Amino acid sequence: MEAVTGPWKQLLLNALESNSHLRHSSFFQLATVGLNGRPSNRTVVFRGLEENTDKIQIHTDYRTHKIEELRHCPYAEICWYFTDSWEQFRVNGKIDILDESNPDLNKVQQREKSWYASSLKSRLQYLGPSPDLPCLSELPDQEFLDHSTGPVGAFCLLVLDPDQVDYLNLKSNQRIKFTSGLSVNGEKCWTSQRINP
Amino acid sequence: MEAVTGPWKQLLLNALESNSHLRHSSFFQLATVGLNGRPSNRTVVFRGLEENTDKIQIHTDYRTHKIEELRHCPYAEICWYFTDSWEQFRVNGKIDILDESNPDLNKVQQREKSWYASSLKSRLQYLGPSPDLPCLSELPDQEFLDHSTGPVGAFCLLVLDPDQVDYLNLKSNQRIKFTSGLSVNGEKCWTSQRINP
Repeated sequence: MEAVTGPWKQLLLNALESNSHLRHSSFFQLATVGLNGRPSNRTVVFRGLEENTDKIQIHTDYRTHKIEELRHCPYAEICWYFTDSWEQFRVNGKIDILDESNPDLNKVQQREKSWYASSLKSRLQYLGPSPDLPCLSELPDQEFLDHSTGPVGAFCLLVLDPDQVDYLNLKSNQRIKFTSGLSVNGEKCWTSQRINP
Repeated sequence: MEAVTGPWKQLLLNALESNSHLRHSSFFQLATVGLNGRPSNRTVVFRGLEENTDKIQIHTDYRTHKIEELRHCPYAEICWYFTDSWEQFRVNGKIDILDESNPDLNKVQQREKSWYASSLKSRLQYLGPSPDLPCLSELPDQEFLDHSTGPVGAFCLLVLDPDQVDYLNLKSNQRIKFTSGLSVNGEKCWTSQRINP
């Protein structure tokens, strides 16, 4: 048992820092299980860790397939490859969907905070036509949002609570598997083990 | 119905060409479904298309978890993001495992061809300790292979036969969904549709 937030968090923060000159360093691939039982996989943007935790935040449109997939199976695996430092993080965990209908006051505030933290251009996307559906028109949308408008219905915050992290460093050829468990007092704690790359 | 190999193949070849100056442009993320029903996701290397087809080749170690996962559920989704051209290909399909025990002569030859096409350094990895298992020793391996040695037992060729491709271009903000079907004479054919990003 090494630490409550797990030593992988520091490895991730280091990777983010050393790859921060690359725009795509905040992009990772999120795998879910489709309603047909087949895997789904898409690139999403890292929107920070929830304050004082190791939970990973993602923004998404409520109308995308991944929402119904996550309602059916809430587990996901992030694969995050850092192209400059040659490090890979595979983060497996359960996703909490914070949407408009969520009654928990903490979560309402968390969703609002995420909304206001994103750019106006990002926010406008949630007013566009429904993602994944056929294009009906070539006309640009005439939607309008001002800075003070709160989160729109389609805006959704996903929070992934990791319970296993597989870290691979291709420069040092080291691989570490971090696994979470519960301590005797019910707190989450992490163990780690070197495994073969 | 547009063409037998699907117009997405040319889009993919163009993306490979325009991103070829980046070493990581041949890396993509492969999602499978784990034995516990949760998604798995990892970075793998593109090893080319099978000759005259649109089937995607990947090399892997037979001893990795992905093999047992694919035996359980043969479907996978590739998410391939090209960091310079801002293009994403999500390729969903069924994976065929070409391992040592495969009796089909064509497949035996295909696996051999893939083996000899990879570098001696890549080949040596298949003689190392079992991936995913705990490290037992810090000692380097004393394995030896010469150029003429054929594929070792752990070497495995995966061939993904795509049946759906979701193409997204973040520069033009265009997205196209390609879906395969069977023509009246039993041949695979592709349809495409513009969908909202």
